[in-house]
Amino acid sequence: MSNVKAVVLSAYEKPLEMREYPDITSLDAGEAVVRVEMAGICGTDVHLWLGQLAVPLPIVLGHETVGRIELLGAGLDKDWRGAPLAVGDRVCWASSLVCGECYFCRVKRQPTRCTSRKAYGISYCADHGPHLRGGYAEKIHLRLGTAIFRIPESVSTEAVIGAGCALSTAVHGVERCPIEWGDTVIVQGTGPVGLAAIAVAKQAGAAKIIALGAPAHRLELASSFGAAAVINVEGVIDINSRRAAVLHETGPYGADVVIECVGYPEAVNEGIELVRDGGRYLVLGQYANAGNISFNPHTITRKQLTVQGSWGFEPRHVDRALRMLEIREWSAKFASEVTHRFPLSEANAAMETARLHKAGKTVLIP
Amino acid sequence: MSNVKAVVLSAYEKPLEMREYPDITSLDAGEAVVRVEMAGICGTDVHLWLGQLAVPLPIVLGHETVGRIELLGAGLDKDWRGAPLAVGDRVCWASSLVCGECYFCRVKRQPTRCTSRKAYGISYCADHGPHLRGGYAEKIHLRLGTAIFRIPESVSTEAVIGAGCALSTAVHGVERCPIEWGDTVIVQGTGPVGLAAIAVAKQAGAAKIIALGAPAHRLELASSFGAAAVINVEGVIDINSRRAAVLHETGPYGADVVIECVGYPEAVNEGIELVRDGGRYLVLGQYANAGNISFNPHTITRKQLTVQGSWGFEPRHVDRALRMLEIREWSAKFASEVTHRFPLSEANAAMETARLHKAGKTVLIP
Amino acid sequence: MSNVKAVVLSAYEKPLEMREYPDITSLDAGEAVVRVEMAGICGTDVHLWLGQLAVPLPIVLGHETVGRIELLGAGLDKDWRGAPLAVGDRVCWASSLVCGECYFCRVKRQPTRCTSRKAYGISYCADHGPHLRGGYAEKIHLRLGTAIFRIPESVSTEAVIGAGCALSTAVHGVERCPIEWGDTVIVQGTGPVGLAAIAVAKQAGAAKIIALGAPAHRLELASSFGAAAVINVEGVIDINSRRAAVLHETGPYGADVVIECVGYPEAVNEGIELVRDGGRYLVLGQYANAGNISFNPHTITRKQLTVQGSWGFEPRHVDRALRMLEIREWSAKFASEVTHRFPLSEANAAMETARLHKAGKTVLIP
Amino acid sequence: MSNVKAVVLSAYEKPLEMREYPDITSLDAGEAVVRVEMAGICGTDVHLWLGQLAVPLPIVLGHETVGRIELLGAGLDKDWRGAPLAVGDRVCWASSLVCGECYFCRVKRQPTRCTSRKAYGISYCADHGPHLRGGYAEKIHLRLGTAIFRIPESVSTEAVIGAGCALSTAVHGVERCPIEWGDTVIVQGTGPVGLAAIAVAKQAGAAKIIALGAPAHRLELASSFGAAAVINVEGVIDINSRRAAVLHETGPYGADVVIECVGYPEAVNEGIELVRDGGRYLVLGQYANAGNISFNPHTITRKQLTVQGSWGFEPRHVDRALRMLEIREWSAKFASEVTHRFPLSEANAAMETARLHKAGKTVLIP
Repeated sequence: MSNVKAVVLSAYEKPLEMREYPDITSLDAGEAVVRVEMAGICGTDVHLWLGQLAVPLPIVLGHETVGRIELLGAGLDKDWRGAPLAVGDRVCWASSLVCGECYFCRVKRQPTRCTSRKAYGISYCADHGPHLRGGYAEKIHLRLGTAIFRIPESVSTEAVIGAGCALSTAVHGVERCPIEWGDTVIVQGTGPVGLAAIAVAKQAGAAKIIALGAPAHRLELASSFGAAAVINVEGVIDINSRRAAVLHETGPYGADVVIECVGYPEAVNEGIELVRDGGRYLVLGQYANAGNISFNPHTITRKQLTVQGSWGFEPRHVDRALRMLEIREWSAKFASEVTHRFPLSEANAAMETARLHKAGKTVLIP
Repeated sequence: MSNVKAVVLSAYEKPLEMREYPDITSLDAGEAVVRVEMAGICGTDVHLWLGQLAVPLPIVLGHETVGRIELLGAGLDKDWRGAPLAVGDRVCWASSLVCGECYFCRVKRQPTRCTSRKAYGISYCADHGPHLRGGYAEKIHLRLGTAIFRIPESVSTEAVIGAGCALSTAVHGVERCPIEWGDTVIVQGTGPVGLAAIAVAKQAGAAKIIALGAPAHRLELASSFGAAAVINVEGVIDINSRRAAVLHETGPYGADVVIECVGYPEAVNEGIELVRDGGRYLVLGQYANAGNISFNPHTITRKQLTVQGSWGFEPRHVDRALRMLEIREWSAKFASEVTHRFPLSEANAAMETARLHKAGKTVLIP
Repeated sequence: MSNVKAVVLSAYEKPLEMREYPDITSLDAGEAVVRVEMAGICGTDVHLWLGQLAVPLPIVLGHETVGRIELLGAGLDKDWRGAPLAVGDRVCWASSLVCGECYFCRVKRQPTRCTSRKAYGISYCADHGPHLRGGYAEKIHLRLGTAIFRIPESVSTEAVIGAGCALSTAVHGVERCPIEWGDTVIVQGTGPVGLAAIAVAKQAGAAKIIALGAPAHRLELASSFGAAAVINVEGVIDINSRRAAVLHETGPYGADVVIECVGYPEAVNEGIELVRDGGRYLVLGQYANAGNISFNPHTITRKQLTVQGSWGFEPRHVDRALRMLEIREWSAKFASEVTHRFPLSEANAAMETARLHKAGKTVLIP
Repeated sequence: MSNVKAVVLSAYEKPLEMREYPDITSLDAGEAVVRVEMAGICGTDVHLWLGQLAVPLPIVLGHETVGRIELLGAGLDKDWRGAPLAVGDRVCWASSLVCGECYFCRVKRQPTRCTSRKAYGISYCADHGPHLRGGYAEKIHLRLGTAIFRIPESVSTEAVIGAGCALSTAVHGVERCPIEWGDTVIVQGTGPVGLAAIAVAKQAGAAKIIALGAPAHRLELASSFGAAAVINVEGVIDINSRRAAVLHETGPYGADVVIECVGYPEAVNEGIELVRDGGRYLVLGQYANAGNISFNPHTITRKQLTVQGSWGFEPRHVDRALRMLEIREWSAKFASEVTHRFPLSEANAAMETARLHKAGKTVLIP
């Protein structure tokens, strides 16, 4: 029986290591083995590598993955949408699995806050069988209950990985903090989540989208995704000038909706000033705990704001993201985010590329 | 022609002065003169006296007022609800007047953020005719367009003043941040806004209300208003102990809705920790700019919170507040808040009483 | 091994028969056997007996049941809320089981419209093992996935059966067609669903509830449940007089919310006239297909109405219903609905009692 | 002083007459006189001409009008949005004026149900001065409080009239019955309201729009407006075949949202069958009372539907409609609806053209 290669993080900030795990030849009911075709390197992976979020080590990273079904456990004959599922099908899946039984899953219908939620590439120690629980590997083992999606032929693997977890995150965020058609929307940040937020805002009928971000090549992507105006935050460093530049685009009262996709805590203070009175602010990018800011809560009362948080996503948001990718235009745009490809054996170079933000999206191709 | 006495603030933190202004004997269309029966001293008045909010000086304070119609301008023959209005009727009114024409009034339907909103007792300089634009006076002059409400016989003047602007504020706040029947609700603060929030939460079907406040006599009021549990913040000073005491009442995940009615900025950090994941936080008490806190925006994303601000109120919230006071039980409870009565000539003693939080509600009776 | 007695409907409109089925001594994982303490006869059971809804015959009727756990399958150690579950516990359960996988369960989150939903006492043929799938029996067998609720000590069996499926139905209906606190609400019908709707409206803060129903003893219940005014539809037969009587209570424009809990199709035309323009109409009682009415759709456009349907309920509505019954006042009121008790052997007399609407709630006590 | 020509309906189904009224040379505060550039003939005008809606006779018809300001009363120096207003400006306006004071305007915020709402071209008898209260005339006199909009240069008069009252009606309807981005939407009817509904659905991010209508030239318009599939109701007369054709496009469960823009009452029965369970049905086209249908209310309960009515529109919907027309693509599409132009003197030929549905939009050019 041959072994399966996987890239493992065994110590923070240390080089990733190639390891081999026993191949999986038998499955319990509802499980699957997928041969990985492409794995995205998400900004979160960089945070994990830097040790900014606690994970069990060693770990096979990778929560953005496309592959082909190699083995199907008993009873697993349909994907999440009810479409037939067979060996050889190209699939992706919701990276998290929830219990469906806890207070948040059941009573409050907030499954992303499930008390025992686990994510591939984030929550599983590679020392425990079946080991292969992340996308940076030749194969991945999917648990009973994983929301698997057969990818339509018309949607390329690059589009799915280019969209990554960012698109599902944005779909979920905008569900919680709705954009009405005709709204003016500001998106702070032009990383993957920012671009996805622009795309969702565009799709939801935003009348005008203004993007704040950097560097230049990301702003070009932002424009191509639908931003009518882009402001280079590296070019306009002074907060007041930046604010003036934004209000020049929105009119004097600011935007109906502002979506934070930056991650630096201080962005929240900048963003909240850009929302019109009575408007909505979606705090989507503060996924990691990056520390405190000096904040004036009077602003929330006085401006009569709605400030909304959103965490991760549910399978139905992946469903909606994939349906969006079935629109050729979006599929092409998201695919265009993928700029750098590495084999598993060059995972460290890939991680470094992603870390330096030189690239669009960096991916591993086992 | 006799003069009209009014209590005027002419310099911050200085004693209020009794002044006299010419009586008003003729009115333009839609205006009214009301003889004041009772004027509440609101916590905001104390802030104004301390100079914590900029107002034009000199000023006749007083935005919580009940009186009887003395003069009616042409065409003013119905109250806001369409009920006939006549000289001698006992009335109150929405303290603010909006333009109805600006971006916030018209396009965004956020009239409390009207760009030219003006409030009796807050926005008018007493040096300008007709001078009498506040409730700390024998008479008050109401502008065209003021939302006047004839008070039903069954609702006592004490009930209306006891409820004050706090009840309308709470009605508005809960409209923006809805309580579902069956929700667990925490109210931070047991001042007038806190008690009103408890009342509205109770009326809206909250299954359990927990109040955090002080001192003891306010907590007794909180219990009588419907709080099933009260926690004395002076008795439990340690934040962690306080949190434990609250979670003992709510269960381990916190409350569905937390309503901040404190005004100290730091209360926001305490309150936000008490909301269950996916819950709602209403920032209702940060009316004055009381400075910054050290705040972690990651909490909003991770807990998937809705943080909602609400500013002042509209006439329809006064309407709803008055309808609530038509329920005998509420009328009696709010009337019980009024504990200290002073004549106009003792306005300084009244202000001092209010400032030291010794009283329930302090009122002036001209 | 002893047998288990069950009351079976084997032909529409024919007497129910007592049958015996083999006792169940072993269970698969997640299953349970419950010894029935009380089974409610729901209006729907009468419809089933009359053949107005197609069901598989023979059938053990009964979808409102309270009993004590006799056997627990492997892994079933917690109830739906996560509370520990043990042999001897008094329980009830959501009568329907959904697949959790179909388009309505997953993508649209409308599980009550699950394409393969099955209900105890309604969907299972008694000829197929394990036979015992209805409440009119000494024991009932619960499938894997049934949402079981341990009943708190403070809530009597009479309260749970008195509330029956009606309360969960009303909880769900009002979730879809929200009552804002302060709303005026009309409830059409004073059967179990009507009373439950009154209770939920009251709990949700309705300012005034008007009930239309009959006969007198049901109207007395309606008053005790919180209706401020009751109109005897047998006493006021003329539609226009009835409308006048209602508007006398609501004011000239009608009610903010009208809830139909009647079941006769013609009630919809009467009810829709009683909603104020821009108000909401909840069609909750048209559970059976009772035929067509002559209807003018112009009314919906002109009155700018929201007409809302609601079908059955989900486990979380049972959860909420039970929490409502933990309020002593509601528990007592719902228990008071139970007026007639019969042993299994007198099931035909019980059905007859229910059919003639002579009773409050009729129950079987095995 | 010269006279002003106007086209008057003095008896139902009789030829329109050209009359002359005295010119208006002085105005009260807030009033305006507008020289008409183009007046649309709305389907409602045909209904009025046929006597299907009661109006005061004689009447100057015309509620879709664009013209240039000729006179401005004192104080009228800004349009509804606050933009400066001057003689010579090209403008349109909300056709209805509401009181702002009644129960529906104030308490319930349903101004389209204002108890004293009046519409230009519909509610004013031409015998009463100032006579000129409809668009089929050389000039129109606008009352104090009319919501006037200065038309941006980039938006052609044809676009505004092509959109007509239909676009504002659709904007309002979709506000009450929201389309979520990604929804599948069916539009019944391809008249002006149907096309506008397609446009709004498209703009709001509908994933797929299916239009049912006739004749062929309207279906071509529907396609150009964004319908991905069109079904010719004249070609597929059998209801079951039609349903099958629609479900072929939507999938087996029907659409998330169906918008009725037909006006024939029977369309409601067809449409309601096309909504998926748990979906929304907007009854937008039943503006006139066109009689009853045989209807089964059980459908609403069982399918768990939301059926929503919407009546007319408010100024803010006109605002939003105009902002939509600032998008070049929409402006061009709506302008393309205008196919037939007549001078005032040929108003009868114009009315006949509109009545026979031969045209796109028929307009009068004074």
